[in-house]
Amino acid sequence: MIRIALDAMGSDKAPQVEVEGAAQALQELPPDFRLQLVGRKADIEAALSRVGDVDRARVEIVDAPDVVAMGDKPLAAIRGKPRSSIAVGLGLQKKGKSDAFISAGNTGAVMAASTLVLRLHPGVQRAAIGALFPSAGQPVLVLDAGANIDCDARELVGFAHLGSVYARDVLDRPNPTVGLLNIGEEDEKGNAVVKEAHQLLKQTAGLHYIGNVEGREIPVGEARGLRLDVVVCDGFVGNVVLKFYESAGRVFVSLIKREAPDVLQRPEMANVLKVLDYATYGGAPLLGVQGVVIICHGASPAQAIKNAIRVAIQAVKSHLSDDIASEFAHDGKIPA
Amino acid sequence: MIRIALDAMGSDKAPQVEVEGAAQALQELPPDFRLQLVGRKADIEAALSRVGDVDRARVEIVDAPDVVAMGDKPLAAIRGKPRSSIAVGLGLQKKGKSDAFISAGNTGAVMAASTLVLRLHPGVQRAAIGALFPSAGQPVLVLDAGANIDCDARELVGFAHLGSVYARDVLDRPNPTVGLLNIGEEDEKGNAVVKEAHQLLKQTAGLHYIGNVEGREIPVGEARGLRLDVVVCDGFVGNVVLKFYESAGRVFVSLIKREAPDVLQRPEMANVLKVLDYATYGGAPLLGVQGVVIICHGASPAQAIKNAIRVAIQAVKSHLSDDIASEFAHDGKIPA
Repeated sequence: MIRIALDAMGSDKAPQVEVEGAAQALQELPPDFRLQLVGRKADIEAALSRVGDVDRARVEIVDAPDVVAMGDKPLAAIRGKPRSSIAVGLGLQKKGKSDAFISAGNTGAVMAASTLVLRLHPGVQRAAIGALFPSAGQPVLVLDAGANIDCDARELVGFAHLGSVYARDVLDRPNPTVGLLNIGEEDEKGNAVVKEAHQLLKQTAGLHYIGNVEGREIPVGEARGLRLDVVVCDGFVGNVVLKFYESAGRVFVSLIKREAPDVLQRPEMANVLKVLDYATYGGAPLLGVQGVVIICHGASPAQAIKNAIRVAIQAVKSHLSDDIASEFAHDGKIPA
Repeated sequence: MIRIALDAMGSDKAPQVEVEGAAQALQELPPDFRLQLVGRKADIEAALSRVGDVDRARVEIVDAPDVVAMGDKPLAAIRGKPRSSIAVGLGLQKKGKSDAFISAGNTGAVMAASTLVLRLHPGVQRAAIGALFPSAGQPVLVLDAGANIDCDARELVGFAHLGSVYARDVLDRPNPTVGLLNIGEEDEKGNAVVKEAHQLLKQTAGLHYIGNVEGREIPVGEARGLRLDVVVCDGFVGNVVLKFYESAGRVFVSLIKREAPDVLQRPEMANVLKVLDYATYGGAPLLGVQGVVIICHGASPAQAIKNAIRVAIQAVKSHLSDDIASEFAHDGKIPA
C-alpha cells in the first residue's frame, strides 16, 4: 500500500482545496494507496466534514500545528517552525512512514526543507524542479523551472539525467530526447555556461541528447523531427518562461471570453484549451532528493491536487528515487 | 522628404516580399517618404514589374550585387561582402543620403554592420534589439531580444534608457514604465547581475522604474496596476521568450484550426488573433546606434515589411536617434 503525505495547509485555499483533491483522488484513482493529510487537525477535520463522502479508512490525519506562510523566508520557516506541515510531512518520509510528499505551499520552503530533510542522492549537485509544458504534441518536461538561479554547466548536465529518469519512469518515454535551451541550434550559440554544457552533453553517455533547442520548439513539442521530451535550462530562464506561458494561456482564454464567449463552450475547443491548463498536469517534481516530492501551484484547484497525487503514486510505483540513485551512480556521473 | 533604405535581399522570399511590402507602404501610408530599394538591380526590377502599380517616382533602386546569406558568419559577411545590400544600405545612412535602414536579412550581420558603420551613440555600451510583445493591453517593448547574450548590470540600465526613449518617441507613451524581468518582485530575487541592476535602476534619475516584473506580467501588459511599457532583460532570456511566444501563438492557432476551423473565420476572433500576429508590429528596432535600423523576421510577410516602413518613418519623424543621444548625454549617464 502506497502512502502519500499531502500538505493540507499549502495552497491559497487550504485546507479545503487539498481535502477536495484528496477526496477526488480516493474516488477516481486505483485504490492501492492511502493518504496522510498533514496540518492543523481541527481545520482538516472541518474541511473533511464539508466535503462529505471520503473513505476515512484510507485517510490518516497527521497533526502539524505550525503553518508556513507564502511570504516566510524559506530557511527561517524551516528552522523556526519545526512542527509545520512541511517539516512533519517530509519527516514521515525520512522515517520510512511515507512514500511521497505533496505541497502547494511556499515553494522555496518546500525545496529547502526537502533538501535538508531528505538529502540529495550521492552525485546530484542540485535538486531541480521539473515543469511539464503543454505542447501541440506530448507535454515537454522543462527543468530547472526555478529551484536554481545560477547554474554551471555540470549542473545542467545533472538536470539532463534527472529529467531523463523522470521521463522514463513517470511520463512513459522509454528513450527520452534531451534538448538544451539556447538561442540557436549551432554549437557556438549561447552564453559561456550553455556553450560548455552543450559540449559536455555531447560527450555524456546514457543520454539521448539531440542538441541545442530554441524557445519556439517547446510549444511545438518537437525538435530535429523528434518528439521533444526533456529541455534543460537554468532556473532563471525556466521560471521566466514557465510563468510567461501560464499567463499567455490565461490571457488568450480571457480574450476569447471577451470577444466570442460561446466559442469556449464548444466541445471541440476542449482539446485546444487543455493545452493551456496546468491543472491537467497537477504538480512539478523536485528531482534529485532521496524520495518523492511534488510541488503544486499555490493557486491549484482540487483537480490539480488530485493529479499531483496520481503523479506521486506513479513516481513511487516506478521507483523513481531508486532509479535516480542508480543513474547518478553510473551514467549520471558528471565528467570531471 | 524622408528617405527609407530597404534591404531588398533580406527575407526568405526576397526580393518579392520586400517589393510587395514597399508597394503597400507607398499606397497606404502618408506620402511624405520615398524608398531606396537596395540589392541586385535586375532582381528588384523583375519583382517590381511583377507587382505592377508602384509609384516609381518615389522609388530609387540602389544596386548592391553581393548578398549576405542567412548562414553567413556576421563579421565575415561584412568584411567579405562590402557591396552587399546590408553594407550599401547602411552606407547610404552614414553618408547622410538616407534616414533609416530596414532589413529582414541575417540578424547577426545587420547588427554587426550597423554598429561598425553607424557607430554607437556616446555613452551607449551596447546596442539592443527591442521586440514588441503583444499583450492583453498595449504591446510591451522587451529588450534586449537577442543582440547581447551576456549583459552586466550597467548594460541593463542602458537598455532601460534606450527602451524608454523608443517608447516615448515611437509608441507614444509619454512617461513609460520600466520593469526588470525577474523571477519574483522582491529585492533579493534573481541572479547577481539582475540584483545589481535592480539596485542601480532604483537609483537612476529620469526613468519611471517600477521594479522587478515576472514573465506572467508581459502577456497581461500590466504590473503594479500600471500599464507595462518597457521590460529589460539580457538577450539570452529575451530571445528565448520571444521565440517561445511567437511559437505558442502559432501552435494555438493551428490547434484551433484542427479542432474547430470555422472559429478562426469569425469576425470577433480577429481581435483575439491580432494579439498573436507579429506581422502587425513589423520589425524590431536596433537601439543605440547613431541612426535608425529596423530588423525584420526572415519569414516576414509583405504586411510586416510595410509596417516596418511605418515604424521607421515614425522613428525618423520623432528624432529617435537625436533623443537617444540626448538621453545618454544627460539622464542616461550610467552611475559609475
